[in-house]
Amino acid sequence: MNTTLTREEDLAQRLLKGEVRALSRTLTLVENQTELGAAIHRRLYAHTGKAHIIGITGSPGAGKSSLVNEMALRLADGGHRVAILAVDPSSPYSGGAVLGDRIRMDRAVETNAIYVRSMASRGALGGLSHTTADAIDILDAAGFSHILVETVGVGQGEVDIARTAHTSIVVLVPGMGDEVQVMKAGILEIADLFVINKSDRPGVHALERELRILMTLVMAEEGDWKIPILKTIATKPSGIEELGAAIVEHKDWLETSGVGAQQAEQYMAERILALCSRGAIDLIKKEHASDVRAGVLGCLERKNDPHSVARELVAKL
Amino acid sequence: MNTTLTREEDLAQRLLKGEVRALSRTLTLVENQTELGAAIHRRLYAHTGKAHIIGITGSPGAGKSSLVNEMALRLADGGHRVAILAVDPSSPYSGGAVLGDRIRMDRAVETNAIYVRSMASRGALGGLSHTTADAIDILDAAGFSHILVETVGVGQGEVDIARTAHTSIVVLVPGMGDEVQVMKAGILEIADLFVINKSDRPGVHALERELRILMTLVMAEEGDWKIPILKTIATKPSGIEELGAAIVEHKDWLETSGVGAQQAEQYMAERILALCSRGAIDLIKKEHASDVRAGVLGCLERKNDPHSVARELVAKL
Repeated sequence: MNTTLTREEDLAQRLLKGEVRALSRTLTLVENQTELGAAIHRRLYAHTGKAHIIGITGSPGAGKSSLVNEMALRLADGGHRVAILAVDPSSPYSGGAVLGDRIRMDRAVETNAIYVRSMASRGALGGLSHTTADAIDILDAAGFSHILVETVGVGQGEVDIARTAHTSIVVLVPGMGDEVQVMKAGILEIADLFVINKSDRPGVHALERELRILMTLVMAEEGDWKIPILKTIATKPSGIEELGAAIVEHKDWLETSGVGAQQAEQYMAERILALCSRGAIDLIKKEHASDVRAGVLGCLERKNDPHSVARELVAKL
Repeated sequence: MNTTLTREEDLAQRLLKGEVRALSRTLTLVENQTELGAAIHRRLYAHTGKAHIIGITGSPGAGKSSLVNEMALRLADGGHRVAILAVDPSSPYSGGAVLGDRIRMDRAVETNAIYVRSMASRGALGGLSHTTADAIDILDAAGFSHILVETVGVGQGEVDIARTAHTSIVVLVPGMGDEVQVMKAGILEIADLFVINKSDRPGVHALERELRILMTLVMAEEGDWKIPILKTIATKPSGIEELGAAIVEHKDWLETSGVGAQQAEQYMAERILALCSRGAIDLIKKEHASDVRAGVLGCLERKNDPHSVARELVAKL
């Protein structure tokens, strides 16, 4: 071992060799948005772009964790190295994560090809998606061929994460009613695959019909991806093989249609601009703190307005 | 009528005189983020800062619309001019609003002191809160003493809107289970008042106990606001008077404790910085389009990484 290695080089090299402890340590550094984490991320970025990133979202109680567990086990059986990244819901203010039922994941972790990581979402607007995207890069560089990213709900953060994924799965459960209503608006734009989990429950046909009606609202063109509706019972397990096949099919379509490359480019532009936005705010806070303060007071006294103050601040950059 | 008035001056003056058509027209201009809308907003901003802004959030099916309706009617009976701003959930991509049940609002609109406006949420990240904040300003300038802002769910956009409000009400319903679980993490930080609506349903005591346990998790200090739990049946109506009294109590506490002024300052700083962020992105897109493009390609080829590209772009501002 070369003792002249910096901590950064050391961690990066050990991670690339597949050392789990180095991976976990790096993810913590990235999650906490430390400078060391950023340096390792920068160093590892050249090794990314190989994994197939699969997003799994849906309401609480939809059985996402069990489903992810079974998917990971199946992939591992097929000789793949799989990472699971579970992004838990948490307060946008206090940053305290609500811990979900990760215990059932244990079974998956026991087989050595699967790495499981829970991640608390952070307070800052956009912070959830930034750190998740970085964590996915780290897992990608670490050589996992499949990264399963599990999120809850339909907030903007979750939508951003769904866009990070190559294949996005929306998990639904029969008889949820209101939940589907909430999700409806955004659901079609997120979903590459619908999964009706707990499909031994009553209401499967009603839900499937609802989804099919919803899909007719979107103009499909020749060559477009046709969103499949799959039925699973994760706890049995049942339907996991078909789900795996549908994911492979979607992956192939992304490649042959050229849509995958288009999406990657669009997502990269969005990611860079979102990082610019954060960078610009940091710069304004640091370099123009007194102008910000004066602007805030001017607005509170109604001598100025927020849009004009913001425009003046941006002009000072 | 002075025919030399610009359209902007004309609309602003008519709005300040209380003309409903001018108000509706201005809100549309602001909602569509037009330049004319921005100009009127700038002109009217000096007339803002007088209304008490009340946020009402909660799950779909919690009966928020009925509750808002009854609150508005009660305030109008007391001689107040009330505006209702209903922010509907919509796709973060397509921008199409899912129309809720606004029909029940008709009864409220018939009494002339109440103005009701539905607003579609827009696609851009942060777009929801920006246009909602501007719309609230317009209603404030138009002389409404109370502005009731109804939103759905717990996305980041809704949380931002909740922060815009002086008094935030979280509406819950007995027997929702999962819903509460989702909201738990952020709920305490948003809520100034809890309302258990449909309180003639079973499960009221369980829900109340759950909320009280949740509240014990937050360290309260001497002089802190103690979040009251109110019970209503909006459709009856029952409990609306007590809710009104609790809102007045919270308003008084904001003033006497000085917390209201602190929050206004903090919110203004956040609002300005969020606008700066949007302004910086617009500037980068406009002035450095080719650098963005080169940066995106560099990242896709893994010759560069998104953080480094963003840093370089911000440095060019």
